[in-house]
Amino acid sequence: MKTEQDFSACLNKKIVGREPLKEKLIEQYRLAQQHQKMRRSGGKTPPLHFALTGNPGTGKTMVARLLGDIFKQFGLLATGAVKEFQRGDLVSDDRGRTTHTIIKDRIAEAEGGICFIDEAERLVNNPNPSGRDALEEIMALLGEAKNVMVIFAGYSEGMRELYRINEGLERRIHMEIHLDDYKPEELARIFIDKASSFFIIPDTAEKDLTDMFNRKFIRHIIRFYNAGLIDHLLNDVASEIERKERADSKAATKPLETEDLEKAFDKLQKRLEERQNWLQKKFH
Amino acid sequence: MKTEQDFSACLNKKIVGREPLKEKLIEQYRLAQQHQKMRRSGGKTPPLHFALTGNPGTGKTMVARLLGDIFKQFGLLATGAVKEFQRGDLVSDDRGRTTHTIIKDRIAEAEGGICFIDEAERLVNNPNPSGRDALEEIMALLGEAKNVMVIFAGYSEGMRELYRINEGLERRIHMEIHLDDYKPEELARIFIDKASSFFIIPDTAEKDLTDMFNRKFIRHIIRFYNAGLIDHLLNDVASEIERKERADSKAATKPLETEDLEKAFDKLQKRLEERQNWLQKKFH
Amino acid sequence: MKTEQDFSACLNKKIVGREPLKEKLIEQYRLAQQHQKMRRSGGKTPPLHFALTGNPGTGKTMVARLLGDIFKQFGLLATGAVKEFQRGDLVSDDRGRTTHTIIKDRIAEAEGGICFIDEAERLVNNPNPSGRDALEEIMALLGEAKNVMVIFAGYSEGMRELYRINEGLERRIHMEIHLDDYKPEELARIFIDKASSFFIIPDTAEKDLTDMFNRKFIRHIIRFYNAGLIDHLLNDVASEIERKERADSKAATKPLETEDLEKAFDKLQKRLEERQNWLQKKFH
Amino acid sequence: MKTEQDFSACLNKKIVGREPLKEKLIEQYRLAQQHQKMRRSGGKTPPLHFALTGNPGTGKTMVARLLGDIFKQFGLLATGAVKEFQRGDLVSDDRGRTTHTIIKDRIAEAEGGICFIDEAERLVNNPNPSGRDALEEIMALLGEAKNVMVIFAGYSEGMRELYRINEGLERRIHMEIHLDDYKPEELARIFIDKASSFFIIPDTAEKDLTDMFNRKFIRHIIRFYNAGLIDHLLNDVASEIERKERADSKAATKPLETEDLEKAFDKLQKRLEERQNWLQKKFH
Amino acid sequence: MKTEQDFSACLNKKIVGREPLKEKLIEQYRLAQQHQKMRRSGGKTPPLHFALTGNPGTGKTMVARLLGDIFKQFGLLATGAVKEFQRGDLVSDDRGRTTHTIIKDRIAEAEGGICFIDEAERLVNNPNPSGRDALEEIMALLGEAKNVMVIFAGYSEGMRELYRINEGLERRIHMEIHLDDYKPEELARIFIDKASSFFIIPDTAEKDLTDMFNRKFIRHIIRFYNAGLIDHLLNDVASEIERKERADSKAATKPLETEDLEKAFDKLQKRLEERQNWLQKKFH
Amino acid sequence: MKTEQDFSACLNKKIVGREPLKEKLIEQYRLAQQHQKMRRSGGKTPPLHFALTGNPGTGKTMVARLLGDIFKQFGLLATGAVKEFQRGDLVSDDRGRTTHTIIKDRIAEAEGGICFIDEAERLVNNPNPSGRDALEEIMALLGEAKNVMVIFAGYSEGMRELYRINEGLERRIHMEIHLDDYKPEELARIFIDKASSFFIIPDTAEKDLTDMFNRKFIRHIIRFYNAGLIDHLLNDVASEIERKERADSKAATKPLETEDLEKAFDKLQKRLEERQNWLQKKFH
Repeated sequence: MKTEQDFSACLNKKIVGREPLKEKLIEQYRLAQQHQKMRRSGGKTPPLHFALTGNPGTGKTMVARLLGDIFKQFGLLATGAVKEFQRGDLVSDDRGRTTHTIIKDRIAEAEGGICFIDEAERLVNNPNPSGRDALEEIMALLGEAKNVMVIFAGYSEGMRELYRINEGLERRIHMEIHLDDYKPEELARIFIDKASSFFIIPDTAEKDLTDMFNRKFIRHIIRFYNAGLIDHLLNDVASEIERKERADSKAATKPLETEDLEKAFDKLQKRLEERQNWLQKKFH
Repeated sequence: MKTEQDFSACLNKKIVGREPLKEKLIEQYRLAQQHQKMRRSGGKTPPLHFALTGNPGTGKTMVARLLGDIFKQFGLLATGAVKEFQRGDLVSDDRGRTTHTIIKDRIAEAEGGICFIDEAERLVNNPNPSGRDALEEIMALLGEAKNVMVIFAGYSEGMRELYRINEGLERRIHMEIHLDDYKPEELARIFIDKASSFFIIPDTAEKDLTDMFNRKFIRHIIRFYNAGLIDHLLNDVASEIERKERADSKAATKPLETEDLEKAFDKLQKRLEERQNWLQKKFH
Repeated sequence: MKTEQDFSACLNKKIVGREPLKEKLIEQYRLAQQHQKMRRSGGKTPPLHFALTGNPGTGKTMVARLLGDIFKQFGLLATGAVKEFQRGDLVSDDRGRTTHTIIKDRIAEAEGGICFIDEAERLVNNPNPSGRDALEEIMALLGEAKNVMVIFAGYSEGMRELYRINEGLERRIHMEIHLDDYKPEELARIFIDKASSFFIIPDTAEKDLTDMFNRKFIRHIIRFYNAGLIDHLLNDVASEIERKERADSKAATKPLETEDLEKAFDKLQKRLEERQNWLQKKFH
Repeated sequence: MKTEQDFSACLNKKIVGREPLKEKLIEQYRLAQQHQKMRRSGGKTPPLHFALTGNPGTGKTMVARLLGDIFKQFGLLATGAVKEFQRGDLVSDDRGRTTHTIIKDRIAEAEGGICFIDEAERLVNNPNPSGRDALEEIMALLGEAKNVMVIFAGYSEGMRELYRINEGLERRIHMEIHLDDYKPEELARIFIDKASSFFIIPDTAEKDLTDMFNRKFIRHIIRFYNAGLIDHLLNDVASEIERKERADSKAATKPLETEDLEKAFDKLQKRLEERQNWLQKKFH
Repeated sequence: MKTEQDFSACLNKKIVGREPLKEKLIEQYRLAQQHQKMRRSGGKTPPLHFALTGNPGTGKTMVARLLGDIFKQFGLLATGAVKEFQRGDLVSDDRGRTTHTIIKDRIAEAEGGICFIDEAERLVNNPNPSGRDALEEIMALLGEAKNVMVIFAGYSEGMRELYRINEGLERRIHMEIHLDDYKPEELARIFIDKASSFFIIPDTAEKDLTDMFNRKFIRHIIRFYNAGLIDHLLNDVASEIERKERADSKAATKPLETEDLEKAFDKLQKRLEERQNWLQKKFH
Repeated sequence: MKTEQDFSACLNKKIVGREPLKEKLIEQYRLAQQHQKMRRSGGKTPPLHFALTGNPGTGKTMVARLLGDIFKQFGLLATGAVKEFQRGDLVSDDRGRTTHTIIKDRIAEAEGGICFIDEAERLVNNPNPSGRDALEEIMALLGEAKNVMVIFAGYSEGMRELYRINEGLERRIHMEIHLDDYKPEELARIFIDKASSFFIIPDTAEKDLTDMFNRKFIRHIIRFYNAGLIDHLLNDVASEIERKERADSKAATKPLETEDLEKAFDKLQKRLEERQNWLQKKFH
């Protein structure tokens, strides 16, 4: 039988840094383990739904999937499959069924795994009231949902708005797991992990990138992008490398050099600064 | 033939404390008994619909189910089955039928048992007028509904709002049963009842827990959670026990100690205090 | 052939007191009789639709059914069947047909009898305009409806609101029959009539009950309940009797005593006073 | 071949008094006659749609039907059938078709006769815009409608409102025929015509009734009822006669006496005065 | 092969006066001719959609049909058929299809001819936004519509409103053809052309009618009716002639005399003046 | 294997001038090339969706199609087909499916090619919220869309409005390609390219046209039409040529002379000036 140490090891392999998150996941794991034992005594354990908050790009979906996988692996969920639903999946369907029926169905689909409600705040910040109706229907089923773990994902503020609008939600959620923004060194590490599938990474890259992600402007905007910055930077690096390979086609694959990283990073920063000007309202 | 003593005994077995509730249920029982005798004289007895009010977690649904079971057992209802309906079940269905037809159907489904209208206030506090239409349709059938007991469940204030908006409702409801908030000692007792399926409970637990539920902050928020606190606490205790078992895995099942309870309770209280800050508007 | 005396006797047998009502019904009877003679001369007589107003519990539906029965018995209506329709039956149906078609159908269903439009004011005091459309469709058919008597039932004020909103209605209604609130002695009589199917009634009950219904508070609220008070009181009496029978089970059926009536009445009054406080807005 | 004299004679036989109306109808007749001759020369004549205005009870529908009959009789319309449509027939149907298709269909149904749009002002004084859409669709077909005469019926003010809202309507309507309120002597005559099918009318009745309809209050309200007063009075007379026959059953059929008329008229007036009080807003 | 002279002759035969209109049509003809030559060189020519503006009764539909006929005759359009669509044809259909699909279909129906959008301003001056959606869908197809000439017809002001609301429309329309109000002498000529199919016209009629149409009031309102006055006048003349023939039936067909014209015109003017008073808002 | 030089050559052949655009396209090309190499290493590359902004007539659709063709040719997209969607294609369909399903379908249709969302700002500047719902659904799929390149096209300001309203969009778009307004000399060149399929162009035409497009008024309005001016001018030239050929039919095809161009341009300018007056609001 697998132990907490196995679980913890498993987490460390999958998640870079983010110790507070791991602690919370271990807590959720412990709870699930104990629930199993308790159920063996024949009693009915309380439901295990929770909220997952964090800024865009902090990996909420990734955490849900990870949890599904590990929980299945450790025998805590039958299938561990993560069914992801957004507002559009919850308020109406092509057959014109009522919200009531749709929600029942969605929860049933997720049976044995995780019902992941993404951007949950969209259920209440839309003038169309069908989202709130959907939320009320979910509430009505939360207590009954036996073999499914419901995760409400969203921004911190959005989740609190949800609590305010639907008083029942807060009472039915045991735990709230918050994903902090990535730290510059974590972003550097993630980038290197990802880029190393494609390029030969110089030894100094981690330090260099950490410095770059530590630039004042970037530090300021991490909260709007988080891991979203990685894809942008990877594209800029790819573009740079391609340019270099074209210029000097002697070697088929060029190693990534600090200079390339800098050029790409500067390009990314310039673009983001430009956009910041457009989106003034948002950043000020 | 079963007697009032049997009924009363039956209640005492199922409900911890809550004497005022039991009295009300006995009154409803008496009425139903007398109605049976009266019907034997060939006359038509008045309907027995009632309102069930109380804060969240005070066990409204549980009471309805209990009443269904006992009434069936005592021959006062044919099936005693409790059909639970919420706003979503009453205002529309997948076949696009009118509220009028849906309500007729719902009442018919509950024939021989209890038609339980949960969170009845949601019928009128929604900008969409279909809830009020549904309520009017229910009113129109209440006088005719012979073999069904309709129970309107909700918060006290919500139920009075219902009375104000639909003048006919109050006239058609004979009795209003109010479920008081749980007292600290009752919550302690409920927790122990539930937890004892899983853990070995120390003798001092009841007193200790009563003290904990008597903490000023907790006393202040009982009304928002009531029995909802039990599941939260049970999870916190489970988590604590699991942690303890991991730390010292010599014994497979650890007994629950006062210290565990305290740790879990503190954790619970901390979490609730945090949330109170978010929900300021609600608590102030 | 039956005479007006027979009709009058028939009314007296069915209705306790309420002389003004009986006079109005006799007038409607005379008119129907004369219409029959007139039709024998081959001419086309004017339609006989009317309005039936009164507070809740004054027996509007009962009067309509009574009229249907007697009119059939006296050969003035083919079937005398009373088809009761409420707003929900008139504005939409499960097949999605237009109000226009629905109304045509409803009038056709009532052919040969009475088309009873209950709580007619609900057609105009709902923000949804479909009720007014339904009313206009009814108006359009009133002049053509040959073998059907349409009765618009509602509160006095509601009916006048109807007249104000749809100018054509008042022109098409010959007679308005108003049902006065029940007098204390009438309520006492009705209660005794109903209760005597179940209990042995003491001789002083009529006087006692008349006194009770004459209490200032009760007199004040009769208009909100009328015969609705009977069911409430009957339940309270039943509960009281049951309690008594349990306490002393020697005799199977206990006679109803003045003291029981008083206890039940006090209980009823207390409950109604409580509710009055909630509904302040309504009673002040 | 029939002549204008025949047409005029035909009108005089069917309509009591109302000379201005007859003149207008003769004018419409002349026009239709001349159109026939003109069409024989092979040219295309302008359409003959018109507006028919007047207070309630002035006989708009009756005039349309009369015109249909006579025009058929004189060979000016193929079938002369009058298809009556109200707002409800024009804006939607049970098959969910568009206003566009419905209107096309309605005009086609009336082919060869008269398309009578009753209470035409209801097309524009309803907040729901589908009436205006229907009107626009009718406009679009008016020029093309060859073998159908479209009549827009309504109150004078309503019709002018229609002109104001849909500029095209006034351009497409050649003639407006206005039906004046009935004069007291005309109402007396109409009543006698109708009542004489049922009762023996005293010789002085015409003078007596003219006096009664000349009472100040009645003169004042004729415009709200017109011929609608006849049915009300006929019912009151019938009720009076029945009462008299019951009181003295020697003769099977009693002649109508001046005294009966007066009693009935007083009863009618009293009822109308009462209702006037309710409808203050309308009468002041 | 037909020449511009043939085209011009053809126009002169069909249109009385209106030289500016003819010039514009010749310009459109030239363009279409040149396009044909250009397409023979294999290139893709720009689309030929245009706007047709003018007051009511100025003959917009007639011009579109004429253009369709002549363009077919001269080989510039495959079928020359004019498909006329109004708002109602463009925003919804009986099958509940989207505006998107309906518009695609309508354009396809007109393939090879003219797609005539009548009263185009109705697409934007209706509170229901589906007209604007329809307009956007038309815009999206205008560039692609190869073998169809789209004509937007409406009042000058309405068309400019269209341009303001949908910026793309003005860019896609090469030419705007404006139809001036008819001049008194043109109206006189049109009337005589039409009336001469039915009556013998006196030689002085053209001058007399020109004078009549030149009366100050008539000149003032021509812009609201234009050719619409002809039908009104023709009806009034027909009525007059019929009256005359009845009075003196010696000759079967009476010639039209100046006096008849004058009587008819006076009658028409009187009626229009009356209506002007009703429609004050419009005329002031 | 084809090289960047091939790609660049290919662009030069298809696009007149517009160097900044070409640079951006080469950058996008490089990125796509490098992505291919990266995928060969087995890693998952970031998505390549982008925004395409520019005034009307700057050729956004043309650029998307061009990119589709070249990317297919260079093996970077499987089919290279460009599926163009507008608001109408995204918010509803004839089968009444939800936005959610429609969007999934539209993205699937574009699989292997480009999903081109034209006039993307229309998704948010319409009061009907279904456009915003559609946008949210697109956002939800952007990260998953593997073999499809999504292009959002619109005006600069419109695109920034999109970014403001849907915060997720900006994060998911790597690159924004802006199409500048055409320069007078570019417009001259484009006209000549297009006209030379039909006419013999004089050598001085390029200079002459550049001068004409440089007129103050024209320079001022280029931004509202861009290449849209070419079609207008081509029609005016065609009309002029036709007129000339008619006047002197000796030669079948007349060469285009400077004088013709000038006449046509003057006519175009006059028309645009007129329209500017109508559209004041827009131009001031």
